[in-house]
Amino acid sequence: MGEFELIRRYFQRPARRADVVLGSGDDCALLAVPAGELLAVSTDTLVSGVHFFADVDPRALGHKALAVNLSDLAAMGATARWASLALTLPAVDEAWVAAFAEGFLALADEHQVELVGGDMTRGPLSITVSIKGTVPQDGALRRSGAQPGDDLYVSGALGGAALALQHLLGQRSLSAETLAPLRRALEWPQPRLALGAGLRGLASAALDLSDGLASDLRHLLAASGVGAEVALERIPLPTALGALPREEAWALALAGGDDYELCFTAPPQQAAAIQAVAAGLGGAVYAIGRITEHPCELHWQYEGQPVAPHWQGWDHFKEAP
Amino acid sequence: MGEFELIRRYFQRPARRADVVLGSGDDCALLAVPAGELLAVSTDTLVSGVHFFADVDPRALGHKALAVNLSDLAAMGATARWASLALTLPAVDEAWVAAFAEGFLALADEHQVELVGGDMTRGPLSITVSIKGTVPQDGALRRSGAQPGDDLYVSGALGGAALALQHLLGQRSLSAETLAPLRRALEWPQPRLALGAGLRGLASAALDLSDGLASDLRHLLAASGVGAEVALERIPLPTALGALPREEAWALALAGGDDYELCFTAPPQQAAAIQAVAAGLGGAVYAIGRITEHPCELHWQYEGQPVAPHWQGWDHFKEAP
Repeated sequence: MGEFELIRRYFQRPARRADVVLGSGDDCALLAVPAGELLAVSTDTLVSGVHFFADVDPRALGHKALAVNLSDLAAMGATARWASLALTLPAVDEAWVAAFAEGFLALADEHQVELVGGDMTRGPLSITVSIKGTVPQDGALRRSGAQPGDDLYVSGALGGAALALQHLLGQRSLSAETLAPLRRALEWPQPRLALGAGLRGLASAALDLSDGLASDLRHLLAASGVGAEVALERIPLPTALGALPREEAWALALAGGDDYELCFTAPPQQAAAIQAVAAGLGGAVYAIGRITEHPCELHWQYEGQPVAPHWQGWDHFKEAP
Repeated sequence: MGEFELIRRYFQRPARRADVVLGSGDDCALLAVPAGELLAVSTDTLVSGVHFFADVDPRALGHKALAVNLSDLAAMGATARWASLALTLPAVDEAWVAAFAEGFLALADEHQVELVGGDMTRGPLSITVSIKGTVPQDGALRRSGAQPGDDLYVSGALGGAALALQHLLGQRSLSAETLAPLRRALEWPQPRLALGAGLRGLASAALDLSDGLASDLRHLLAASGVGAEVALERIPLPTALGALPREEAWALALAGGDDYELCFTAPPQQAAAIQAVAAGLGGAVYAIGRITEHPCELHWQYEGQPVAPHWQGWDHFKEAP
């Protein structure tokens, strides 16, 4: 089966969104951006052997390839609309493509995202998704809006995906019961789109956690020209991490990466409104610290005592020669 | 040097376009689409060993990665605005990245395109560009508008890139003098953006030639529900192809691929206007045949005599099991 037939069979569906003037099948897709809204775009690549195991469930991989991109829209407070998919495959494996498409399109449907084009090529397995959404003209949650005195939040437990990864890499042995929820966090992350949209007008800054809080938070601090104090005891951890020695749990929660939770700031007077938004979505958010006026200074504390960090976020090239 | 530092040093520049509300460095870029315009988007991937040689000049590769995407916008008659770049590299080679960025950004500057984000990951060398432009609400050149009786055009000589590739693969030996212009066609394709924009309101359908006319034209015919007759003697060939046996030249020109010329149709009464647009841009376009009413029937002729085709366009998976 050729590239065009594979695309047609597994990825092409009738247009579902009225704002898709022309979907896949031409040189470009044509999309209508509503008046008063800005286009929000982001691109992320997942590479076999780097971001996922070559033998990962293709359904989960299809889900995750879209989820990590949707997470970027969530962090801007944007509404998801359209996705493009560039899929590079070593060979045609029709069952694999069918399962990948199923995982990708199921999540797309859940968030009313339409696949409007892409590319399929032969080569080492990798996936690049380009996601597009819109956000009201002055509604975007940028990284640069944090103010001294703001509360600092995360949207869920950190470090579970990283712990599952250690098990899968053979660095740690977990029971099947312990592993199951952690593996769901690793392979089936849930982008916080509803929360991101709900935080518009409440949060002062936001980003999503992909490399680990210790690394990602520094980007927010640098963009805003502020510092932060984080109370380590307030960071929500999955049960399995709570059972680990403290330093191990922190390393996973702060530098493990792959969390895809939101990290955001808000003035203290918005605290009740923010908890109400989270509760309205059936979840919770966690205040873990506060923003200070000292540019780029990030202080970790445990029960009021300073803790020196032994963790660092993920950087693909940090160990390169 | 880490991923963030590489991106900052070689790819981040001050915003140049007023429609870039927020450029790279946040979770998403924020872009303003003018009222009355549709967003046109496309994505193409180039994989090392498939679309280019691993040791290709990185400056040329940076150019081509953007050029093949701009070619898709040209084929819609769209104006280029923004690009995202997902670059996967086996290791940090700063000189390589610097040269790649130089080639990419030089072409971006030429067409006033701004790089608004992307991703840099470690893995087998590949490049995915997601290009974004805009086109007036009813101005897009779709594949589906060709009508029986329309003239069929291409925007330049075909097959030169494919001939250069045969030389580089050792399948053919060309003199340095013969190779030079062919290699330019292969490595430095020029997207026909000005021509595409000029054809709005004149052409009835268009696409860009990436897989070869024999394959790509079929997509236009299928989308329009029409057929075509092509006069092989009217297809413009580079000098070096004119010197080859006829069947060899046709195979290269019709099925070699990598041409990145436009193929388009227009009613005969637009012929003079179309030639005037091309001349105004310092170039030419070539009428090579006409559209017929027979859906998907593609007939090749040489000096009025039917020719049976022995060529087929490129499909990444056509030889897969």
